Amino acid sequence: MHSWIDISPTSDFSMYNFPFGVYKTAEGKYHAASAIGEYVIDLHVLAEAKVFHGVLNLDKTTLAQSTLNSFIAQGKAITNAVRTVLQDVFGADNATLRDNAELRSKALLKQGEVQMVLPIHIPNYTDFYSSREHATNVGIMFRDPANALLPNWLHLPVGYHGRASSIVVSGTEIHRPKGQTKADDADKPSFGPCRLLDFELEMAFVVGKETKLGESVSTAHAEEHIFGMMLFNDWSARDIQKWEYVPLGPFLAKNFGSTVSPWIVTIEALAPFKVDGPVQEPEVLPYLKYEGHKNYDINLQVDIVPENGQGKTVCQSNFKYMYWNMSQQLAHHTVNGCNIQVGDMYASGTISGPTPDSFGSMLEISWQGKKPVAMPDGSERRFIQDGDTVVITGHADKAGIRVGFGECKGKILPAI
Amino acid sequence: MHSWIDISPTSDFSMYNFPFGVYKTAEGKYHAASAIGEYVIDLHVLAEAKVFHGVLNLDKTTLAQSTLNSFIAQGKAITNAVRTVLQDVFGADNATLRDNAELRSKALLKQGEVQMVLPIHIPNYTDFYSSREHATNVGIMFRDPANALLPNWLHLPVGYHGRASSIVVSGTEIHRPKGQTKADDADKPSFGPCRLLDFELEMAFVVGKETKLGESVSTAHAEEHIFGMMLFNDWSARDIQKWEYVPLGPFLAKNFGSTVSPWIVTIEALAPFKVDGPVQEPEVLPYLKYEGHKNYDINLQVDIVPENGQGKTVCQSNFKYMYWNMSQQLAHHTVNGCNIQVGDMYASGTISGPTPDSFGSMLEISWQGKKPVAMPDGSERRFIQDGDTVVITGHADKAGIRVGFGECKGKILPAI
Repeated sequence: MHSWIDISPTSDFSMYNFPFGVYKTAEGKYHAASAIGEYVIDLHVLAEAKVFHGVLNLDKTTLAQSTLNSFIAQGKAITNAVRTVLQDVFGADNATLRDNAELRSKALLKQGEVQMVLPIHIPNYTDFYSSREHATNVGIMFRDPANALLPNWLHLPVGYHGRASSIVVSGTEIHRPKGQTKADDADKPSFGPCRLLDFELEMAFVVGKETKLGESVSTAHAEEHIFGMMLFNDWSARDIQKWEYVPLGPFLAKNFGSTVSPWIVTIEALAPFKVDGPVQEPEVLPYLKYEGHKNYDINLQVDIVPENGQGKTVCQSNFKYMYWNMSQQLAHHTVNGCNIQVGDMYASGTISGPTPDSFGSMLEISWQGKKPVAMPDGSERRFIQDGDTVVITGHADKAGIRVGFGECKGKILPAI
Repeated sequence: MHSWIDISPTSDFSMYNFPFGVYKTAEGKYHAASAIGEYVIDLHVLAEAKVFHGVLNLDKTTLAQSTLNSFIAQGKAITNAVRTVLQDVFGADNATLRDNAELRSKALLKQGEVQMVLPIHIPNYTDFYSSREHATNVGIMFRDPANALLPNWLHLPVGYHGRASSIVVSGTEIHRPKGQTKADDADKPSFGPCRLLDFELEMAFVVGKETKLGESVSTAHAEEHIFGMMLFNDWSARDIQKWEYVPLGPFLAKNFGSTVSPWIVTIEALAPFKVDGPVQEPEVLPYLKYEGHKNYDINLQVDIVPENGQGKTVCQSNFKYMYWNMSQQLAHHTVNGCNIQVGDMYASGTISGPTPDSFGSMLEISWQGKKPVAMPDGSERRFIQDGDTVVITGHADKAGIRVGFGECKGKILPAI
């Protein structure tokens, strides 16, 4: 597919992508957007110009709201038809926008010159723990190297509820959290800024189709409920977590902030990158069995950029390493009748690969601080320092088709 | 305070209460409501009749919405002024409504004849674990009787994020959940309906004033952020919980449904019932210290009513037993900068008292099934059976002032 737009071969936003997001206009309004090459596409402007007239039943008012929830709730028949129209309009031979300078100037804005916002209201957020390599690394470090995985791990996609209110869009600065910690040799806890601040490389999927309380979603139908995916940084305060997490799980170690990328890449745009998942042994229970390819080959990278300094790539991983796939996660989450809602976000858990350069957190990369990472400026990183920006990027690439996510970045400011 | 309405001395809805809720009108609309004696008060009807004209800046459109979030967000100056007007209007000497039969017929509806709905949109839900007696009982049963409390328990109010989507209003029927469980002597898990279904007697508070990410709420200011309280049943699938909860906490064992009472009783209406909390030893960290009375003397009761059978009171407890109070819970939750939002719900955790008849769950009452409860029909209860309705009631009572919560009830249907 060729476009009349000049799209770099390394652009995340090819003719095969057309993700969805929301940006804040110069007038302070919110418009639904897509992206191509270096541009943000204002979908509200295109709708006003009747570009989407071929999309039956599209409610155009959903393109001028502060979130995409109403747009997404219309269903994939409509949201994917919008993508098809965009592929058509940006096709090399289509003159609609190409030859209309005035419309072009209103509908196409340079990325980096507009403010992207959190594109969805998130009614519920769940974080899974679905990378075998990550769970194994954590188990070796904190429990028993000989029995690194807990007994339930290979039988169900372990997950827990997280905090929706503190999920922020890429670019939002986050203060280092304060909290209770207890040194192993102390007889009581103390209070102060987190000393072991970490990122977690994750991806998250967004639900596009709700269920009612009592209903379950099978693995065969799960992807009908998945609208798309984003990059996700599950910031973690390791020292707070260690003290607080028994017996009910992580709480203040996580809920001071999580960062997502601004674009939701549709699950349909990612279809070309489906691959086999790992063999699941022992055999899973029937409700967790699935057919076909449910893993996705998506390259992921994490960079740490010190304040005014040169960045360093600390992790190169891949979403295909996930032991439990998204369809299994959703089938498990709903097997008890738990209802899901449009805009719900379900994060993968840290995505670690098999080798140290593919570990998805500083906890693993520095192996609890024992293997510091050398930075270009001569400093070392065991965990994240004040002033550091963590940048997650991700893209899929196959046979000349590239679909990417942009970036998910956040800077850590000193504790308040 | 006397009213021209005939209010039973045992009514939860005295002249000192005036809680807030939402009901669905015969025309299918949603109106904000309060309650007095046996009546629901339609606040939208009263506003249309200009009864609230004295309440400056009241946005009357907030009284005709499906949730109270916008009404609550106006702040306590306004919501409490509405309560003051109601106390005035229902006072024995006030003729406004008393002598206006037409307005009375529209504004006063018999409770039981109207459908109350979930009165708030809940952006975030957290469940604490703040009863020392409950945590001790669980610790004795599942861990070490000699060290029943985990090391962190006396230093911080342990809590975890729960599922907002599956919180339903009193009266909603809930299907027994299905899920994975593993018998101690089995070598692998199996799938089926939960066999150890339990209630948890809890109360929850609702946030009325938000904070921004990075801000903290001190114990001294916490009650400014608390709009009011409700009764809460944190249904729990014990067998699912036991298998799934390590290392990240309860998940499918809880998120199939939680039940709340329809009325939010304001924290101001509960002020007369403030009492001393338990001595906290060891001393807590400075951010958890507080001054004054932060516990509340609220009588709580749980009844199990079999299908077509006679009910049995299985628990009489009191909210005053809480080790960690709500102000400490909110100070802890926000000490890391986690933001809170209007409508957020924070549940207490199971409220167990010191004696077996005050234990707040069947797990404790039947001591893991070893001490079954005899029911009036001759049957026994170790846990909750299909067809059982669990009814939580609660009220405070002091010097002739009674303020109650109505009921929080839910019936368990067979697994789907």
